[in-house]
Amino acid sequence: MCRFLAYLGDTIFLDELVCKPQHSLVRQSLRADQAKAVTNGDGFGIGWYGERQTPGVYREVMPAWSDENLLALCANVRSHLFFAHVRAATGTGIARQNCHPFHYGPYLFMHNGQIGGYGQIRRAMEARLPDHLYAQRKGATDSELLFLLIIARMEMGESVPDAVNQVLNETLAMMQVLQIHEPLRFAAALADGEQVHAFRFSSDKRAPTLYMREASEAEGGRGLVVASEPLADEQQGWELIPQGMVLRLGREGFSRLALG
Amino acid sequence: MCRFLAYLGDTIFLDELVCKPQHSLVRQSLRADQAKAVTNGDGFGIGWYGERQTPGVYREVMPAWSDENLLALCANVRSHLFFAHVRAATGTGIARQNCHPFHYGPYLFMHNGQIGGYGQIRRAMEARLPDHLYAQRKGATDSELLFLLIIARMEMGESVPDAVNQVLNETLAMMQVLQIHEPLRFAAALADGEQVHAFRFSSDKRAPTLYMREASEAEGGRGLVVASEPLADEQQGWELIPQGMVLRLGREGFSRLALG
Amino acid sequence: MCRFLAYLGDTIFLDELVCKPQHSLVRQSLRADQAKAVTNGDGFGIGWYGERQTPGVYREVMPAWSDENLLALCANVRSHLFFAHVRAATGTGIARQNCHPFHYGPYLFMHNGQIGGYGQIRRAMEARLPDHLYAQRKGATDSELLFLLIIARMEMGESVPDAVNQVLNETLAMMQVLQIHEPLRFAAALADGEQVHAFRFSSDKRAPTLYMREASEAEGGRGLVVASEPLADEQQGWELIPQGMVLRLGREGFSRLALG
Amino acid sequence: MCRFLAYLGDTIFLDELVCKPQHSLVRQSLRADQAKAVTNGDGFGIGWYGERQTPGVYREVMPAWSDENLLALCANVRSHLFFAHVRAATGTGIARQNCHPFHYGPYLFMHNGQIGGYGQIRRAMEARLPDHLYAQRKGATDSELLFLLIIARMEMGESVPDAVNQVLNETLAMMQVLQIHEPLRFAAALADGEQVHAFRFSSDKRAPTLYMREASEAEGGRGLVVASEPLADEQQGWELIPQGMVLRLGREGFSRLALG
Repeated sequence: MCRFLAYLGDTIFLDELVCKPQHSLVRQSLRADQAKAVTNGDGFGIGWYGERQTPGVYREVMPAWSDENLLALCANVRSHLFFAHVRAATGTGIARQNCHPFHYGPYLFMHNGQIGGYGQIRRAMEARLPDHLYAQRKGATDSELLFLLIIARMEMGESVPDAVNQVLNETLAMMQVLQIHEPLRFAAALADGEQVHAFRFSSDKRAPTLYMREASEAEGGRGLVVASEPLADEQQGWELIPQGMVLRLGREGFSRLALG
Repeated sequence: MCRFLAYLGDTIFLDELVCKPQHSLVRQSLRADQAKAVTNGDGFGIGWYGERQTPGVYREVMPAWSDENLLALCANVRSHLFFAHVRAATGTGIARQNCHPFHYGPYLFMHNGQIGGYGQIRRAMEARLPDHLYAQRKGATDSELLFLLIIARMEMGESVPDAVNQVLNETLAMMQVLQIHEPLRFAAALADGEQVHAFRFSSDKRAPTLYMREASEAEGGRGLVVASEPLADEQQGWELIPQGMVLRLGREGFSRLALG
Repeated sequence: MCRFLAYLGDTIFLDELVCKPQHSLVRQSLRADQAKAVTNGDGFGIGWYGERQTPGVYREVMPAWSDENLLALCANVRSHLFFAHVRAATGTGIARQNCHPFHYGPYLFMHNGQIGGYGQIRRAMEARLPDHLYAQRKGATDSELLFLLIIARMEMGESVPDAVNQVLNETLAMMQVLQIHEPLRFAAALADGEQVHAFRFSSDKRAPTLYMREASEAEGGRGLVVASEPLADEQQGWELIPQGMVLRLGREGFSRLALG
Repeated sequence: MCRFLAYLGDTIFLDELVCKPQHSLVRQSLRADQAKAVTNGDGFGIGWYGERQTPGVYREVMPAWSDENLLALCANVRSHLFFAHVRAATGTGIARQNCHPFHYGPYLFMHNGQIGGYGQIRRAMEARLPDHLYAQRKGATDSELLFLLIIARMEMGESVPDAVNQVLNETLAMMQVLQIHEPLRFAAALADGEQVHAFRFSSDKRAPTLYMREASEAEGGRGLVVASEPLADEQQGWELIPQGMVLRLGREGFSRLALG
């Protein structure tokens, strides 16, 4: 299990959410409270949108808690939309190519969860990638693969929720064919520079937690935060996103829709 | 273009060949003489056989010349059969997973060269891997892919030279189908703990250089060295391996055979 | 708090103690049981004596649990005397230069503990180093500094226990002058290729734990292991070393003496 | 010999100067033209001023040419004042702590050159640091030491040129006492967020090169660039800064003064 957060709103310094909170992601890298894997030390990453269409991405294999570059970066970069992720590997190697967020064109994606029986199903899923996205595959994770499959559908014109829904359904169908009984768990966020879609899903009703709250002026600006767990002991203001739900964050606020 | 060396013979310290020579591989990492890419600073690796069947492997993304671990390791590890490789990347990312030597079971493999039009051909070649080797694919390089394709044939009972020959022919055939006109260049070595096969091949008769000489008692023991280029200005004793040739090194000496 | 182990005895593969045990050091890097800092992910190191006088050393800033090089190395290197250490930093940066074991000539040293008020006292302690050892200072840790101060006394002819005792006493005296009330805690091991001295000391009687047991044939050979904590749930055979004690391990067995 | 560049002017993306030019610093990391060490692959760093007083700093031990984070960062960070540096180590280890630019409070510093006989003189120079700056010493380089000695004088009220001049004179005096005949070479830049001072000095009249030119609108904004060597074959517009000169860049333009 990994931990992540996404922010959309007024332009604020990344450290307001990534480093400063009592249970910031940097601190969660050392010890998360609601995660099964107590340490998320298998690399981390941040992604942010600035003045260009392509987001900035910084990924590193060191634990987040010991990386001075990360602190300096978060203290000096401001953004209206950013992602941060700390990784607890689930079988695939420790490499920058396997760290979240993944990026492709204007899109950022990060994931907490796992495809059950990934080793058995990986090849059949990779076979579904169109050539140009197959060539974009740089690492070995199930997360990157899901991302590219979603992108493939979005390129065909599907909306983000539809694309995600279809990819999850196809994956479940393939798991059934291969008689995989481990669950498919999927808490994830996907951004395009303008809006963020956040998902909470699991085939066994034990989806990784996902919370939302409004950011306040005290944090540098008004906006919305989605996070794997509340960033402070005080959980007031944090709302647990129900399983099977998609959250769509935009400039104008947020909306909820059911997945599928 | 990368640089590499392979040794088989009496048990000697790795530093005798990897670090001490005038043009040692560590120095070649900073500046090779016969290589087109003057700097081989995109990672390196060593592999060696000790008392277990599976070889030891140490790969790192830093340049070899600046890695204290490499020097300490080579000064303290002795082996009768070892590989060393410094990398100049040709398009795929800098990651330990992309560094040579690659290993699978008792086998070590390293490569200097390139599959022309790899981006176009990669998918069709990966499709030829049996499932259990597809699952072993950890990086993105053409070199690792060639290695796994060779292993697949060896597992079917083919000899090492036959397996390599078939994989090269298949690759060339596929390149022709896809109308790829860039060359396939392949200087490589494959070991199993007992013997080493070294190959020098190119579709355009401009194969990466590959030399051989006998190691002397002054280097700690008698044996045979195969290297991308002579390890000293004094090239006496070094024999250039002709293109299209396979060299087979064993305990009892070496033999030459034509590839294909 | 860091975690470490030292072995002296028959020549065995490092992985027998470093990787395989139920609570191996690699596993302790992710979660130690008796350590205050639950994660020892701020780098690690191993040091071993082979056929040369100078030991091999491999240190890395990644967490031990995610380093494939470490596993491969430990599976292929055999030694009669080796150290392994996983680090939880106490204020100084994450860098290979700050990872244990430290080495100088034929000596290896590793440490678990802390000099109280190190920031205040560091300069006065560094001033005590002779020029040639001052020039050997590569990192910023209190541990490396203690090691070099001990070496300075050993070079003057003092025995290892005397040198350590004097350095601890001088440090305590300096702490008193500077009115530092934080404790000096010191669990450490120092080797010279022939023997190991292990120390357990604290100014506040809360020294980091240190255990000893005999290694069995089942682990590849007979010998003695000193470790921060037992390597298995089953603690039978493990003896807690009392505070204020020095353990001297040699080929012929071990002896205990009081520190100071 | 290292390579560096400094920019002050309109707010522009870092990649305009760091990555895009024909002879950009990223390309110089692989092969510099006017540098004696052809490869500057021993780490790199960038520092930039944004909306906070403390600059952002990103330093890494990999070669600049292979770091995707660097490219992504430079493509997404804009600044009115930034530094970039690629390192060719001169004896001290490869570690982030030894990479330029160094930072302290609002100051950034980078250096190309060397203190002759640094090993002999280091201790006497470190002894001149006030306690609070001694405690800030994180690496082992002569460059960081010069920076902290300059800061010490600036904290006493000296102007930047006076502080640098005094530190260079003191260093030369100490070198004379210790009968060091190797030269002191110093091409450097120091910034405070508002202005940049660039220095070119050598005790043997063979100072590392340092050039200046105006940045044009085509690069995203008007400003001034100081660099170790011209960023393109076309050297028009680049002015070689004479030895013994200080260049002061500010919002209103630049001025020249003699050093000392």
